[in-house]
Parts: sequence; structure tokens; C-alpha cells
Amino acid sequence: MIIVMKTNSTAAEIGAVIARVQDIGASPHPIYGAERTVVAVVGETRAFDPTAFKQMPGVERITSISAPFKLASRESHPDNTIIQLNDVRIGGPEIVIIAGPCSVESRSQLLETAHAVKEAGAHILRGGAFKPRSSPYSFQGLGLKGLEILAEAREIYGLHIVTEVMNSQAVPMVAEYADILQIGARNMQNYGLLHAVGRVQRPVLLKRGMMSSMEELLMSAEYILAGGNYKVMLCERGIRSFEKYTRNTFDLNAVPVLKQLSHLPVIADPSHATGRWDVVPAMARAAIAAGADGLMIEVHPHPSRALSDGPQSLKPQVFAELMQQLKRVAAAVDRTLELPTPVLQGDVR
Amino acid sequence: MIIVMKTNSTAAEIGAVIARVQDIGASPHPIYGAERTVVAVVGETRAFDPTAFKQMPGVERITSISAPFKLASRESHPDNTIIQLNDVRIGGPEIVIIAGPCSVESRSQLLETAHAVKEAGAHILRGGAFKPRSSPYSFQGLGLKGLEILAEAREIYGLHIVTEVMNSQAVPMVAEYADILQIGARNMQNYGLLHAVGRVQRPVLLKRGMMSSMEELLMSAEYILAGGNYKVMLCERGIRSFEKYTRNTFDLNAVPVLKQLSHLPVIADPSHATGRWDVVPAMARAAIAAGADGLMIEVHPHPSRALSDGPQSLKPQVFAELMQQLKRVAAAVDRTLELPTPVLQGDVR
Amino acid sequence: MIIVMKTNSTAAEIGAVIARVQDIGASPHPIYGAERTVVAVVGETRAFDPTAFKQMPGVERITSISAPFKLASRESHPDNTIIQLNDVRIGGPEIVIIAGPCSVESRSQLLETAHAVKEAGAHILRGGAFKPRSSPYSFQGLGLKGLEILAEAREIYGLHIVTEVMNSQAVPMVAEYADILQIGARNMQNYGLLHAVGRVQRPVLLKRGMMSSMEELLMSAEYILAGGNYKVMLCERGIRSFEKYTRNTFDLNAVPVLKQLSHLPVIADPSHATGRWDVVPAMARAAIAAGADGLMIEVHPHPSRALSDGPQSLKPQVFAELMQQLKRVAAAVDRTLELPTPVLQGDVR
Amino acid sequence: MIIVMKTNSTAAEIGAVIARVQDIGASPHPIYGAERTVVAVVGETRAFDPTAFKQMPGVERITSISAPFKLASRESHPDNTIIQLNDVRIGGPEIVIIAGPCSVESRSQLLETAHAVKEAGAHILRGGAFKPRSSPYSFQGLGLKGLEILAEAREIYGLHIVTEVMNSQAVPMVAEYADILQIGARNMQNYGLLHAVGRVQRPVLLKRGMMSSMEELLMSAEYILAGGNYKVMLCERGIRSFEKYTRNTFDLNAVPVLKQLSHLPVIADPSHATGRWDVVPAMARAAIAAGADGLMIEVHPHPSRALSDGPQSLKPQVFAELMQQLKRVAAAVDRTLELPTPVLQGDVR
Repeated sequence: MIIVMKTNSTAAEIGAVIARVQDIGASPHPIYGAERTVVAVVGETRAFDPTAFKQMPGVERITSISAPFKLASRESHPDNTIIQLNDVRIGGPEIVIIAGPCSVESRSQLLETAHAVKEAGAHILRGGAFKPRSSPYSFQGLGLKGLEILAEAREIYGLHIVTEVMNSQAVPMVAEYADILQIGARNMQNYGLLHAVGRVQRPVLLKRGMMSSMEELLMSAEYILAGGNYKVMLCERGIRSFEKYTRNTFDLNAVPVLKQLSHLPVIADPSHATGRWDVVPAMARAAIAAGADGLMIEVHPHPSRALSDGPQSLKPQVFAELMQQLKRVAAAVDRTLELPTPVLQGDVR
Repeated sequence: MIIVMKTNSTAAEIGAVIARVQDIGASPHPIYGAERTVVAVVGETRAFDPTAFKQMPGVERITSISAPFKLASRESHPDNTIIQLNDVRIGGPEIVIIAGPCSVESRSQLLETAHAVKEAGAHILRGGAFKPRSSPYSFQGLGLKGLEILAEAREIYGLHIVTEVMNSQAVPMVAEYADILQIGARNMQNYGLLHAVGRVQRPVLLKRGMMSSMEELLMSAEYILAGGNYKVMLCERGIRSFEKYTRNTFDLNAVPVLKQLSHLPVIADPSHATGRWDVVPAMARAAIAAGADGLMIEVHPHPSRALSDGPQSLKPQVFAELMQQLKRVAAAVDRTLELPTPVLQGDVR
Repeated sequence: MIIVMKTNSTAAEIGAVIARVQDIGASPHPIYGAERTVVAVVGETRAFDPTAFKQMPGVERITSISAPFKLASRESHPDNTIIQLNDVRIGGPEIVIIAGPCSVESRSQLLETAHAVKEAGAHILRGGAFKPRSSPYSFQGLGLKGLEILAEAREIYGLHIVTEVMNSQAVPMVAEYADILQIGARNMQNYGLLHAVGRVQRPVLLKRGMMSSMEELLMSAEYILAGGNYKVMLCERGIRSFEKYTRNTFDLNAVPVLKQLSHLPVIADPSHATGRWDVVPAMARAAIAAGADGLMIEVHPHPSRALSDGPQSLKPQVFAELMQQLKRVAAAVDRTLELPTPVLQGDVR
Repeated sequence: MIIVMKTNSTAAEIGAVIARVQDIGASPHPIYGAERTVVAVVGETRAFDPTAFKQMPGVERITSISAPFKLASRESHPDNTIIQLNDVRIGGPEIVIIAGPCSVESRSQLLETAHAVKEAGAHILRGGAFKPRSSPYSFQGLGLKGLEILAEAREIYGLHIVTEVMNSQAVPMVAEYADILQIGARNMQNYGLLHAVGRVQRPVLLKRGMMSSMEELLMSAEYILAGGNYKVMLCERGIRSFEKYTRNTFDLNAVPVLKQLSHLPVIADPSHATGRWDVVPAMARAAIAAGADGLMIEVHPHPSRALSDGPQSLKPQVFAELMQQLKRVAAAVDRTLELPTPVLQGDVR
């Protein structure tokens, strides 16, 4: 931590800052420049709110030196975290594909989608049973019934299941059905929920808030890790900017940056990050090329009849074609995406 | 709702859209231009997700005509909502001042602050017992103990109490102690929580998310109103932008705009919106001049020792001076802020 | 400047950084922490691009300590700059009002507006003769003819004239007609133009770019000051954010912050910052309460027939009423706005 | 264009709007809903400022239906524009690589870089002779001397040259030396400059402003096309957001979206879009996978001694390795990037 004093700060003010640094058990190193003085603080200060110094007389501002997250940092854990779900490994050289509808709308809709994405090579099935919707008048999900349908699809198709959990009370119930617990973007800083998923032993897919910096995403991961659950994957799903042509701005820079800063797997969600099915394939390819460990893609058998997120959902046939493209891009960046041998019935493409 | 067709859309595609509009019980009005066709949709479509049309062949995009919120809109309720707490009226010509520390840190800290803000003329005491913190290593609040201290301050000083409730399970407990339930910016779209506070009869202070649009804020208010709780006040507390000199960007435009769009009272929080105590007074004055019904201001007896938000907290003396200024600005815009007659003990200003 | 080394940086890398600091004539102060080393740099480094250090092996990042602007800073010039135009002083206790249409559209339109704003108490007449328009198909201004009309209005009504200059070649011509040269938001970083207005002795109104930080605004002012023209006023006119209900987000925080950082006068433009005439009055009042030295307000006799910016233009009668309100708000914050005694002809308000 | 009336608009107000639409030569189609009326406007309205309607009594807002750009739109020109520079084609299946230093700093620096990027397979050499710098105290470029050095590099290495032109007066001089004129991000809405490059027959590389929407970028291209110069390529170089870990937020969504909306070639600049050399390779690969027609990459022989943009510059060896990777990614998305056969001298990797 560096404490920058004002140009006109007095010796007494500088002395008070030095004393305060000693108070908190750290070691002060003042440097006297011609224009102003700075005080470098050496020692562990993560538990201390650095902004308290800001209010001291003569202090202009504070600059942090160390990242505020520790368990999530690659400095503390140089090797990639790999999350294993039976045969599926997340964070290794293999690309993992999560696909399915935004919401579970009915048994037939989900099973039809599960069949299609399994056949195309997806590893994990997504589908929301509890839906956060900005309007109280919109479809809010099937709830428990949705979880049961997801579990049935897992039985039939051998796919793992990821679904969103929206509050801490629901964690045990959702953890009973789901293989991966999803924390949605709007809940990235719902700390009660982060605590709750930190205490279960289910992998967590943590989506970046649409207003959250990469550092804040890593701090939210830190909450889960600090709770004892080390199986966290980070998900870039688009941030909010002034650009309105797409639903969100896909911050793909976050993929290589998060891989640098952290050992946790990074998943990209081109469906939410674009909001337009017709640019999803291009951005899915880009995410793999940028180094993502996996993708989360919305697929719906009849997008125009979807109860949510229809405009960003791929039809099964488009998804199957995309998987072929992704396999090629993965290979070009020394990653692997193995696809099932298609049962030939006419022309696949 | 207006459905804009692509320039090269076919008659069959336009026909399908028209049929779909009829399906949902609305009335389609196609308009054929030289370049393209648009279909205007007449009828109640709020319960229907308009984006589903986006996925239909030949459709380029959808434009909504009506606001998606209804109970919160001034169109549906032209008169100002006034929330009454005994002698304090929020939403009328009187300016309401909420003041106090970011967090309840100790009994003495809170009582000292309560005494000071009461004497300066504040009506409502703020103080967090449960604190959402971006770091798991930061002070998280005193919890129930904090609520008890707040209740004691109410008894002693006759101030109303507002404090944050962070999850739906805690609503009954917090509602037992607090006069106003605060929903924090990070929870503005925590729908379970919005549902929960919609079912109690305590006024709610709903803070705008730091990257939420005014429309989204009003949609979140709609959740609470739709639950049966009509005592909602909206709070502008700064949004996130590229500007980094201040903690947030104070979107004061929201004050007159929300007053136009909605009948609910609008409170402004210059402390979070600036993050710098030395610009809080200027922006507090500005908020009143812009038409806010009240202010929420952080005050701490020893800001440099605060466990959170010290840099944006006013010292009691600065707050007392600010109240005098606010009284003058309120009068200049035909609002009132009555201050207690100071007990003369030397020079107040 | 503080150079933060990586946690695993070697002694040789740290040594190279220290040597490099000495190379540029500054003095290095290394501080060795348990986790990492930082090197504080003492000495004048403004002319040196600090980012060059970023590329050195072992360096993680660089933090600047001093503001990069000097002539514009209040540290270097503690007293307010006051710009005098005959009887009008900008930057003193008096509030200065600039008003007029977005564009000069015709002689009659401008003279009618000039008459109305003069009568209501405005000091300076605005009006664009050269218009930057995002579409090549939109009205681009009357050019030289517009300048002549402005000069005629000055003669008739005794108002000072401010108008935009869009490129460096046009500076001599515009300076011949205008009392104040306006640099538009889109040209805030047009450095050739900043150089050009730095070499003339006409006051400059420098509008903040819609994408520019306060620091960048001050750096652009620095260009003009460094050229020898010290009569610069800064103008906050709204920045771009995700919020779309208003045309821009009025960053009123900039008013007190710029007054702290700099000695230059600060003008606020609520017309562009909101884009909606019906919220202009509220935000004009707020800007005065926040400490602005003046306002720039669009007024048009027939807004619905305006060739540009009609939706944000006030009718003369609304402007006249606003001036009465502004006078009261100015007084409430110890500023003055003297209005002409109205010639009584029925009911002014 | 759709004109949305207020819910309480009167028949007279609606009638006035209808009459006004007829006035401007378009055809009004009113649709009367239960809650409100909308008036659809059929006819060519591009030359008319639609916002003028906003100010009419009873009008709530205006929605545009057609894109405001025409020459730049794919609707008006379905086939890709291909820009040919002798042997280099921009906009076809081949990927075009532009590389070189941010600034021309010296003859030896430029020739050394030119040699390296040529050998690695680049087609076009970049290098700034005139530099827009946010500080007046920073290096501003070598000017004409820089242009001469660039021309010499072209002679020696057979590379095409792209360099920035900062103002309209300089267009003839820069066009004499450069094969492609670059319009920088800060000048994207410098309309005088856009006019000037629209009148010469040199290809233009138009960089997106850091807070400009895709639509505004296309409108700026429209200025150049409307001037008669059809050889425009669009460049995505990162936009400004709240995220501060990277210099800018790389809006790669813009690549497929601009390709959809327009026929013009799209170039991506991962150097400015990230500001960090260590994530440039990942994002360069991503840009190709997203469908970019080419890349612009900063390369410097000694980044830590660069006078500008050192932190985002690749060393020649890293660039050469990246080119090998890009070739593979290009092939995976059915594009081609042919590289020269390396002269074997040890291990190229």
C-alpha cells in the first residue's frame, strides 16, 4: 500500500500517518520528494481497509500494491485448477461445452434439446429452473419441477447438469439435483449466496456481473474459496457498455487476463454476451481462440417460441455445425474438442 | 410494440408474424413502406416476452412502445406517493434527511453519531448492521447486535431507523427493528429479496444498482409494489462509468426523470455517489436543487477510524453546516427543511 | 511515480529498473516487502512516458503520483482564474448565463432568440455557425453567414458571442467574429485545434468529450495554456454511459472536482447533458447549487422547427422563468445572478 | 420512423403531427391503441432530423426504423468491398497483417522493425509520424521526417505503408507518402478531416472512437463514402468501459456485427484494445476467429525504450511466433494467411 500525501502536508500529518501504519502492525517507509511525500507500507494489510487512511489530514490518496484476492490468485497457486466431473475435466487441455435452453419450459422441450446437444458433442446440459427476470410479469421458471426434468435428462443422456441457484436457502435443494451450481450475473455480489455455495462440495460456475470488474469477480470467487469450496469456474458473459447494438459487450480480454491472474477455469458465454444468435458462432470461435476452457451456449429447438432468451438461442442444427467449427479452432490453438462420430443419415452439414 | 421486418422479408414471413400477433390476442397493423414493412401491435402485451418475435424469420428487431412497469408509473398513479412515518413525511414538500454512519461499529460510535445528526436536524438514522463487502476479509457488520444498538438510538433520540436487509430470510428480523428496510445497490435485482419485502408492511428504500438503468430500477420497484407493499422510495446513489476520479458517477438526471416517470419519492445519496467527503456538500445541495425528496448522507464522528466508507463520511460539524446550507437551497426551490433551534454554546458555524 | 515489481522479480531485474530511473535523471528508492518490491521514483518525470518502464522485465505496473497537468492545476495557481469580457466576469462570484440556439438557422431566428435571452438576463449569446453532425446528410450550419448574423446580434443587443470553431484553419476567421471560441466535445482531443486556439488571445470554452475523463479534460486545457492562452473555461456537458433515457449522463460531480483540481472557471451545459428540455430547468438549478460558475442553455423560439437539438431547447418563456429560479438558487449558495428589471406588461410568470 | 404519442395526447396534437409528416413529403399512418397512438411515417426521411418531432406537443418519443447510413450498408451493397493494393487484397479470404511501431522514432528503429515484420509475413507497415498525445509534454512524432523514413522502408522491404493523418491540411502531404491514410480514434468524428479524406483516392483505415457506437462508426464511414472515396476499412480498437485492468475493452462483437451491417473490410487492433503485450497474442487469434479481415499489431524492437505504447508492443520474435499461430487459426475458419518460408537459422519455434 502506498499513501500519497498532499503537496502541502505538514510534518505532523506525515508523522500521524506513520504512527497509524505502525498501529496496524505494518512498517512505514516514507519517501520525501521535492513536491510531495509518499509513505510506502510494508506488511500484510489485506484485512485492513486501506481507505481509512484517506480520511487522515494531509492524505491525498491511497494506492494498493497487492491484489486483494489471495486464494484465487495464480501467485498463490501457480498450477491450473482442474475440476473433474467423472469423465469431464474442466480446466485441462480439453474444451468443455455447456449447452441447453435458457429455461426449462417443459419435459419435451428439455429432452429434445438434451438429445440434440448430446448428439452434437456437448458435455454439460444447462437449463434454468429458477429464473431471475427483470419483470415480475415474466415467466419465472418451473422451480422444483424443472430440477426433476433436468435430472431425468441426465439419466437418459448421460449429460452433467448445471442450473442456477438464486438464494442461499435453495442451495441444498439445487445441489441435490445439479452437478454444477450456477451463480448468475445479478447475484455475483450476493454474499450470503456466495457463503452458502462455499460450504457445499459442488462445483460452482460463477458468472461475472454485468457491472463488475475482473477484480470484483475474483473477489467473489475468493468468498467461495474462503468457504472451503475450491471448485470454482469463472464465466465471462458480457458487460454493460454504451454500445446498444448487442445485448452486452463481450469482454473477451477477460479470458486471457483471468487465466493470468488466477488458476481457476474460465468459461465464456457468447449467448448472453451478444444477445443475437447470428453472431454467437463467430464469438464462440473467438472465445476458444482467446483461450477459454469452455463455452456455455444457449440452444432451443424452437427459439421463436422460447419463454426467455429466444433471440440468442441457436437451433440444434446450427449448434451442431458450430461444434464442427469449434473443433477446428480448438485444434488450431492446441486444445482438443472430441466430437461423437455422427450417425450418418443423409447430409449432416 | 412495433415489429420491424427486414428489407428483404417475404410476404409469407410477414404473414407469419401477423398470425403470431393474433395468436397472443393482440391486433396487428402492418404498414408497408418502400424499403420495409413494420407491424404495429395493438393490445396488452406486457405479460408476453416481445423478444420471442425477434427469432421469427424475416424479423429485424422489436421496439417497445409502453413502459414495462405499470404500478410504479405516474401514468397509472398521477399523484405523488407520500410515505408517512409518524411526524415525518417522505414525498411531500418537506425535505427528509437520512444520516448516520456506513456501519454500526459500536454502541458509543452510533449513539454519538445519532446525537449529532439529531441535533443538526436529521429525521432518520442510517447504519448498517449487515454489510455487503467485496472482500471476504473485510468487516461484515455487527449483525443482530447492530440492530439492537440502532433500536436503542431510536429510543433515545426519537429518530427513525433505516438499515439494510441482505437476504429474504432476514426480512422478518430486520423488519422488527427497522422503520425502513434498505435494499442495497448490489441487491437491486435480487428478486427473492424484492418478493420478501413486497410482503411486509415496512417502507422500503430501494437503491439503484450501480449499473442499472432507471427503467430497471422502476421494474425492481414494480416487484415490490406487485407484492402489495406500496411504500417504496427510489434512491439514486451513483452509477459506474469510465470516470475514476470519483467513486461513482452521480446520475442526478435520474432525480427529475424518475419524478416524471413515477409517483414514488426519490432520495439521493451523495456519499456513495461521490466517494469523497469534500464534494459531498456540493452534491447534496445539487440534489435538492434537482428536486430530490430527501438525502442520505454518511456521517461518522471519526471518519479516519471508520471500518468502512471513511473517505466519504462527513464529520458531525461539517454535516451541521451542510444542513444550514440545505435549508437555504430547499427554500430556493420551494421546499422546506426545518432545523431545530440550535442550543447556543459558542459559535455554531 | 511508483514502479511495482512482480512478486517473483529477480535482484537483477530490480537493479535494471533502478539503473533506468537514474538514467532519466530521477532518484530511485527501492522498498523491499515480504511479497514484492516497489521502487519509488523521486524527481520531475512529467516529460517522461512512465509506461516505458512497464515493458521492463520483472515490472508489474506503474502508478503515477503527480497529476500530469501543471499549468491547469490549482496547486500551481491557487487563486481562481477570472476571465473578463467588458462588464462580464467569468469565474467570480457572479453566475454567467450563456444562452441561444444550437445552430444559427436564419437572421430572424437568431435575432428573435437574442432579444428574448437578453431580456431574460443572459450575458452571452451562443449559436453554431459550423455544426459537427454525425450524419453527412444533416444541416451543417450557415458558415460565415452565420458568423455575420451573430455579430449583428451582438451589435443590437450588447451580448457577447460564443460559437464553435471546428478546425485550426478556421480559427482566425471565427476569432474575428466571436468573443469566445468554443471547442466542441468531439474536438476536445483535436490537438492541432488546441494548439491553434492556444496561440490567439480569445477566451476558449473547452467542452469535455463525451468519452473523456476529467484528467483528460484538464490535459486538453493544458495544451491551450501551454500555448500561451490562459483564458480557458471548462465545460461539463454530459458523458456517455449505459443509461439511455437521457441523451447523456450529466456528471455534475465534475463541477466541484474540477474546481478543486483547477483554477479555471467551470461552466455546465444542462441542455446537452440531458437532451430533454423538460429536465433542463431542474439540472440547471442543480448545476448552480453544485458550484458551477455559469451555464450554457439552448433556447429556441420554435423548438419543434429547430434544425438541430430541438428536443433539448427551451422556449423563451420557459427560459425566462428558469432565470428567476436560478437567481434564487444562486443566492442560496452565496453567488449572484442579477436580472434586468422586467418591463411590466401583464403577468411575467 | 415511428412517432409515439403520449397516453394523454389530444386529437389536435395527433392531427398536428400528421400534418407535419405530410409537410416533409412523407406519408403518415396513425395507429390508435387503447392506451396510446403511434404514427408510422413512410417515405425517405434520412435528410430530415427526426428529433424535431420530439418537441411537438403530445409527442413522447421517436423511433427510427431505417439505419441512418446508406452507402456503408450491406443492404445497399450486398457484396464485400475488396480494397486492392497491388498484390495485397483487403476484404477477401486472405487475412491482412499490418504491423510496426506506434511511432516512427528513428530511421534505424523503423528499418529494423520493417525488416522483422516483413520476414515474419506482415503485408503492411504501420508507424506514426504525427502522434496525437494526451499530454502536450509528450513526444509528438517526427512529422515529415517520419514520412520520409516510412517511404524508405517501403522501398527497401516492399511493404505498403499506413500512417495517421491528423488534420485536413495535412491530407495531401500524407497521401503523397502513405498507401493508406489512418484516421485515429480521437478523430473519428472530425468531420472536416473525414471530408478531406473523402476527396482523395487513397484507401482509409477508419478507427472506431473509444466511446463511439458501431452506428456512429458507420456514419463516419458514410462521410468518406459520400465524398467519393469508396476504399474505407473499419477498425475496431477497443472501447472505453468501467474495466480498468486493460487499457480498453476489446469489443470483438463489433467484428461480426460490422460485417453484417456493412460491406466494408473490418480490421482489429488488439494492441490498443488491450494495452498489454502479454494478452495481444490471445486476442489477435480471437479476432481472426471472430471473422476479422485483418489485424493491426504494434511491434517494436525494444519495447522498453519505445517513446509511446511500449507496454502493448510485441518484440519481433513474439510477433513471428504469433504469425505462425494466426496462420493456423485462419485456416480453421477457412481464411488464408500465407507466410514466407523461413530462412532456417537455428530454431524459429
